[in-house]
Amino acid sequence: QLSSSSYKFLNLYGKNLLLVWPDSEAEKIVDEDIEVAVKTKKSYILASNEWKKDPTSFKVKGTEIGTNKIVVAAGPCAVESEEQVVSVAKAVKRAGASILRGGAYKPRTSPYSFQGLGEEGVKILKTAGEETGLPIVTEIMDTKDSEVFKKYVDMVQIGARNAQNFSLLKEVASIGKPVLLKRGMANTVEEWLQAAEYLLYGGDGNVILCERGIRTFEKSTRFTLDIGGMVAAKMMTHLPICADPSHPAGKRELVHSLALASVAAGADMLLIEVHPHPESALSDSEQQLTPESFEVLMNRIKALASALGRSV
Amino acid sequence: QLSSSSYKFLNLYGKNLLLVWPDSEAEKIVDEDIEVAVKTKKSYILASNEWKKDPTSFKVKGTEIGTNKIVVAAGPCAVESEEQVVSVAKAVKRAGASILRGGAYKPRTSPYSFQGLGEEGVKILKTAGEETGLPIVTEIMDTKDSEVFKKYVDMVQIGARNAQNFSLLKEVASIGKPVLLKRGMANTVEEWLQAAEYLLYGGDGNVILCERGIRTFEKSTRFTLDIGGMVAAKMMTHLPICADPSHPAGKRELVHSLALASVAAGADMLLIEVHPHPESALSDSEQQLTPESFEVLMNRIKALASALGRSV
Amino acid sequence: QLSSSSYKFLNLYGKNLLLVWPDSEAEKIVDEDIEVAVKTKKSYILASNEWKKDPTSFKVKGTEIGTNKIVVAAGPCAVESEEQVVSVAKAVKRAGASILRGGAYKPRTSPYSFQGLGEEGVKILKTAGEETGLPIVTEIMDTKDSEVFKKYVDMVQIGARNAQNFSLLKEVASIGKPVLLKRGMANTVEEWLQAAEYLLYGGDGNVILCERGIRTFEKSTRFTLDIGGMVAAKMMTHLPICADPSHPAGKRELVHSLALASVAAGADMLLIEVHPHPESALSDSEQQLTPESFEVLMNRIKALASALGRSV
Amino acid sequence: QLSSSSYKFLNLYGKNLLLVWPDSEAEKIVDEDIEVAVKTKKSYILASNEWKKDPTSFKVKGTEIGTNKIVVAAGPCAVESEEQVVSVAKAVKRAGASILRGGAYKPRTSPYSFQGLGEEGVKILKTAGEETGLPIVTEIMDTKDSEVFKKYVDMVQIGARNAQNFSLLKEVASIGKPVLLKRGMANTVEEWLQAAEYLLYGGDGNVILCERGIRTFEKSTRFTLDIGGMVAAKMMTHLPICADPSHPAGKRELVHSLALASVAAGADMLLIEVHPHPESALSDSEQQLTPESFEVLMNRIKALASALGRSV
Repeated sequence: QLSSSSYKFLNLYGKNLLLVWPDSEAEKIVDEDIEVAVKTKKSYILASNEWKKDPTSFKVKGTEIGTNKIVVAAGPCAVESEEQVVSVAKAVKRAGASILRGGAYKPRTSPYSFQGLGEEGVKILKTAGEETGLPIVTEIMDTKDSEVFKKYVDMVQIGARNAQNFSLLKEVASIGKPVLLKRGMANTVEEWLQAAEYLLYGGDGNVILCERGIRTFEKSTRFTLDIGGMVAAKMMTHLPICADPSHPAGKRELVHSLALASVAAGADMLLIEVHPHPESALSDSEQQLTPESFEVLMNRIKALASALGRSV
Repeated sequence: QLSSSSYKFLNLYGKNLLLVWPDSEAEKIVDEDIEVAVKTKKSYILASNEWKKDPTSFKVKGTEIGTNKIVVAAGPCAVESEEQVVSVAKAVKRAGASILRGGAYKPRTSPYSFQGLGEEGVKILKTAGEETGLPIVTEIMDTKDSEVFKKYVDMVQIGARNAQNFSLLKEVASIGKPVLLKRGMANTVEEWLQAAEYLLYGGDGNVILCERGIRTFEKSTRFTLDIGGMVAAKMMTHLPICADPSHPAGKRELVHSLALASVAAGADMLLIEVHPHPESALSDSEQQLTPESFEVLMNRIKALASALGRSV
Repeated sequence: QLSSSSYKFLNLYGKNLLLVWPDSEAEKIVDEDIEVAVKTKKSYILASNEWKKDPTSFKVKGTEIGTNKIVVAAGPCAVESEEQVVSVAKAVKRAGASILRGGAYKPRTSPYSFQGLGEEGVKILKTAGEETGLPIVTEIMDTKDSEVFKKYVDMVQIGARNAQNFSLLKEVASIGKPVLLKRGMANTVEEWLQAAEYLLYGGDGNVILCERGIRTFEKSTRFTLDIGGMVAAKMMTHLPICADPSHPAGKRELVHSLALASVAAGADMLLIEVHPHPESALSDSEQQLTPESFEVLMNRIKALASALGRSV
Repeated sequence: QLSSSSYKFLNLYGKNLLLVWPDSEAEKIVDEDIEVAVKTKKSYILASNEWKKDPTSFKVKGTEIGTNKIVVAAGPCAVESEEQVVSVAKAVKRAGASILRGGAYKPRTSPYSFQGLGEEGVKILKTAGEETGLPIVTEIMDTKDSEVFKKYVDMVQIGARNAQNFSLLKEVASIGKPVLLKRGMANTVEEWLQAAEYLLYGGDGNVILCERGIRTFEKSTRFTLDIGGMVAAKMMTHLPICADPSHPAGKRELVHSLALASVAAGADMLLIEVHPHPESALSDSEQQLTPESFEVLMNRIKALASALGRSV
């Protein structure tokens, strides 16, 4: 008789997996439907590349993430109005972005800051996505909102401040959409992979990890983009990796260099804040690029990707 | 005509407050029911001691927090069984603790770690509280669980990993119970006060801030207990302050010294993990004290408090 | 035939030691003069309490460090004039300090800041020490200055910025005076002990470790006083431990609480900045105490020490 | 009559400068030989690009640093033998390196680690430099050794652990050789520029700043390469910037990605550890590249530089 806490059946990446704890009785399980038996003592088992050597790729609507082609998601920090989002969506698409980003539910340090348009904002994003043909990614903050995300959103973002909100991770795993999982600003690479493990364990394997800067003593940038941690993670997991150069920069002037560095280090995706009029944005006004500056950056990224044998 | 985004009426600490943004039209509001007009440009307005000079104190059932008497909350990291909790509750009460702590919903870094007994655990805690007459404090992790907390819990804890889970902060403000708000492991003192501001802005002023260690490069302890940050916070707010010496210690041997240091630095409350058999605990087995060691610690705390002109 | 890199003879704490690398041929050395054979794989061998269980104590002139009596060293950040130092020396002695501190060679972040009086400053300190009967401690910054320290100084301080200046550590070991070794602001506890190891390996065992705050993201204090690291160190070494509450505080108002917390956590010594007129000090004017405030603090420290079964 | 502490004459970059404190009497100084009057309230005045808009470049023997051409310095962590250094020197030159690096005086955390060959090591490096025609850069640790550096070395390196060893900075400014100044592992970008200010103030303007990783909580890499801080520094100073990808990597496998990221972010120089047989190196054996791997990296760097409009 086997304890169910020593093994678990799950279907991931189209395969029937049996997850067994090493040295447990469950190692004896024999079942002809099992295609892969995953056994490891790592704290992130399913996210580890020990059992799955090939890099994971998946589609967000028509856009494939995790291939040789670098995917750029761009858009405003916060959804402010339909006009704003549609105008940015068209601009970033023209410049080469293939996913539209924008915040509807906004995690703000102060209760006095703009808290986002909520469901209304998600619908605006959806409209802009449909007008441009771009899939949309936006952040979820509350387990109660999962129905909204099921209905309207193409890719669910878990933000840095909820990176260890385990209730939310479990809920998101059940939505059944691709997930962009940001690293918490004080999370080690290992903890980041363990957060991803919650998603994979919950049955959702279409996860991309997103480095967005960690908290350090240095204050000339808003956060410290941990390129080394991103590279280390890539060596530990089969999941693709994204970099967000906007939040660590904190200042528009630094975004280009951090984006280029991320691509050179091997990022599979970039998440960049672009606003039609950054100076009057309701949040993160210092770090959002203008559409013109974003276009210049895209051209630089394309040249760089090509030198690295990749495309955008 | 006044924009509602430039002012807010609320009742806090039994007073009718008018919160106005400095330099806004709302400064002209005249209303005879208003007892205090709060105006400040700080990012934490209601939590600031600029408008409320007297230290805040409040009762958790019979136990008053924020007075000259230091309050000690003790109990197991996780609720494992009724027998375990009741036995610890009796022991810590005997040694002088006046609140019972214990985790029912557990935030665990790995999905493979014990996730807690959930609502069942809360009920066990409630039973142990009733048997000993101790009020209980336990952590909430999901906005969906607020009914359980309304029904059974005397004090709601927000954990370090949810310290900037703003949806949860808003939900907890509506429960109407005293709150123990842990500082996030990468949050500045100012961000910690802004998290408290979410609670006060939501109408709940019975909040105690809890320092539990921040993330630094040092690894000889699990986290770095930021005594200086705790003292700095005390100078910025009217809210009482708690210290959790168990989590930063990570090792039983360090808990006594960190607890004593916290008291010497002015903590109003301590939160200490005690387990009948720490070595076989389902979580944090390294850092939980035995009931015997806790009793020794309580005696040392009493002597120290007395030398500082306080009591326990 | 034995390689001299696998063993070393040295005399420490009045004993003839043989230091041998575990699993080396040198383990076979037999010599009747050897009183202790030190064998360990720790990176800090001589500083470890694995071979020397009893706590180390030593005298700085008449003042003994490392006993049940807590030693307080106080004085100005920088030596500015004889009048200033003598006046402070008398005041701190009256309040109960038993060592006089003061900076003559000053490590300043900017070349435009006051760089200290150098040898002239050391002589002033010596004069003030003689007038009051207090031994003096001051910082060395350059291997070239060791003669000055041999001649005038009772205790040599190695500052945080030189905590891994290994040339200086080797030179100081040869001066033959007690050493106060500050922890570098980015050094782990283990690296701090390894820095001490340079001194012990060089033949100087009269070393006290001084915690003065580490660099973290938190900016409400100048540095983060790592009380936990201090306690962890105490469990790993036989050397006594000092705390400097002035530098992490950065602000006068926080110094008392940090000093009291350090004593409660087990510090054997405190190093506190006191200036007759802090507001006009040439350095660290924000964090130096007035003689009056220092006296109040000393009384609080005495009460606390007594409650802990120690004295001052 | 003017106080000499409110102004200073110095010759830098072939110009006669008058440095005056804003709002001081010295602003009235009139002297026909003065070509530039530098007035600013920044803490790093001479290093700031407020007065010198054009990027600084300088020659290390035949190799020019700070131009459109990226300079690569490579060689072993420590000089172990003439054979070792000459063989590596030839290999790195062949692959495209234009400066030879190698440690003779070694700052080692433990006194039991290999401490370097000292002056003997410098001479070996000099020999290898002459055989290959490569200029040499090596680290100085002690003010007493400046004569050795004057005599044999082409470029003087100040290491991370001595980044705020102000006595050493002053001494090095007087040697009159180009300087590679590493950032201390806990130094802010501003403190790094202030350390450079010591060199410029001492009359030596041929300084390149080297980012080599800062201390953070993350342990999957040895240090956190602060690409953002490097980019921020570049916006604040006229001095060129170098990146050391070897030390933050800690592991050979990560060096390529960090080197490429540094180039993409705008580094003017790279400092890379290469050893003929890394696995048997006396220090940093985990992070040194083989000559073969270095050659592959150089080819990738060349392709990347070309895409960025630069050369190697």
